[in-house]
Amino acid sequence: MADNHIVSAFDQELNALKTKVLRMGGIAEANIASAVQAVVRRDRALADRTINSDARIDVFDGEISDLVTRLLALRQPMAVDLRHIVGALKIATDLERIGDYAKNIAKRANSIGIAVPVQTMHAIPRMGEMVLSMVKDVLDALSNEDADRAVEVRDRDPALDELYNSVFRELLTYMMEDPRTITGCTHLLFIAKNLERIGDHATNMAETVYFIVRGSRMQSDRPKADITSQISDPTVAA
Amino acid sequence: MADNHIVSAFDQELNALKTKVLRMGGIAEANIASAVQAVVRRDRALADRTINSDARIDVFDGEISDLVTRLLALRQPMAVDLRHIVGALKIATDLERIGDYAKNIAKRANSIGIAVPVQTMHAIPRMGEMVLSMVKDVLDALSNEDADRAVEVRDRDPALDELYNSVFRELLTYMMEDPRTITGCTHLLFIAKNLERIGDHATNMAETVYFIVRGSRMQSDRPKADITSQISDPTVAA
Repeated sequence: MADNHIVSAFDQELNALKTKVLRMGGIAEANIASAVQAVVRRDRALADRTINSDARIDVFDGEISDLVTRLLALRQPMAVDLRHIVGALKIATDLERIGDYAKNIAKRANSIGIAVPVQTMHAIPRMGEMVLSMVKDVLDALSNEDADRAVEVRDRDPALDELYNSVFRELLTYMMEDPRTITGCTHLLFIAKNLERIGDHATNMAETVYFIVRGSRMQSDRPKADITSQISDPTVAA
Repeated sequence: MADNHIVSAFDQELNALKTKVLRMGGIAEANIASAVQAVVRRDRALADRTINSDARIDVFDGEISDLVTRLLALRQPMAVDLRHIVGALKIATDLERIGDYAKNIAKRANSIGIAVPVQTMHAIPRMGEMVLSMVKDVLDALSNEDADRAVEVRDRDPALDELYNSVFRELLTYMMEDPRTITGCTHLLFIAKNLERIGDHATNMAETVYFIVRGSRMQSDRPKADITSQISDPTVAA
């Protein structure tokens, strides 16, 4: 009886941990969406709300870290429970980072100016949609303990990287054609890079979900297609 | 006697974990240094060696993750030991990220081209030195369990952010003055940003070291001075 009581208190705490991670993920999702919207619509009020909302993500991160430490110290969990607990810590770290990138995107929303080419303003929301669906699906995979879905999220990252490559080349070309766009395009470059990084963190989370569910590592030949660091002349290389 | 044996096996594993983290940190340090050198000297061979060396950091990250899971599962550690183990996992995540940034800097070394202003080529190695001393000192703080030193590392981050701000403004100005420098300066912008991000991860590690040693969080008013996301016209705002 006493034993039952202990087990169920542990289960409660473990569920509380899982719920916290998913709620943190929900806020991160919302902040990515509103940050991209703030950029597209140059909506200063929305940008400010997004920036302020990041503090909530940081609070969750601290709470999850405390709960994990507590669970490890008091409950001495094993096997899949242990993987859930260590996994929660890893995922919270990725979500905290994602929150920072969303906040940074929102901050740049107010600095882009009007002298940026309109075509790029299509590519950014498209990147935003891809990233958002990756984050959403990896949280679903976590919630449903679905390792196959996690693999599928990981496999979508190269397409995001390729879109980023083409945005990068495009932006360099615009800057060369019209130096008045340089400041605005530089902010867009960083926004695109931030979105690409969010994709990397979604991929990290997918690997963690896989490990939680299966107890082994996802095969390591992680696809990677961001090659912008090798671009030396966009007008030729494109 | 049997009990002594168990305790000492645990101590051995815990020491092995600490050593692994410090060795991983040593490689990360070396890769930052050689990545910055590769940029400054446009040294393609050094850049390639740095890029290849990152795989060793990733191997350490995997090993640390496995060892942490094993220690948590089999040894059920408490108090300061538990903080060391969870802390090792967090620090390994930061070092893995730092390794990625160093690799990215090295990749860009070969793409900068020659049309970049020479002044900026002083700012990048200066940022590199600041970042390197932060990473070195936080690893020393970890090794010596020195919480005061960790606070001191955290407090150096704003100076790095300020240097990054001035590099950012400078690079935008150069690009506007001479569009031929746009591709090279864009790579330098990302290199500077990568160095600034390494500083953030050194700060994260400092907070983790503090937590390991003291068992409480470093006061949260973390200084932050990267304001480049708000720059809308560098020629005026500088």
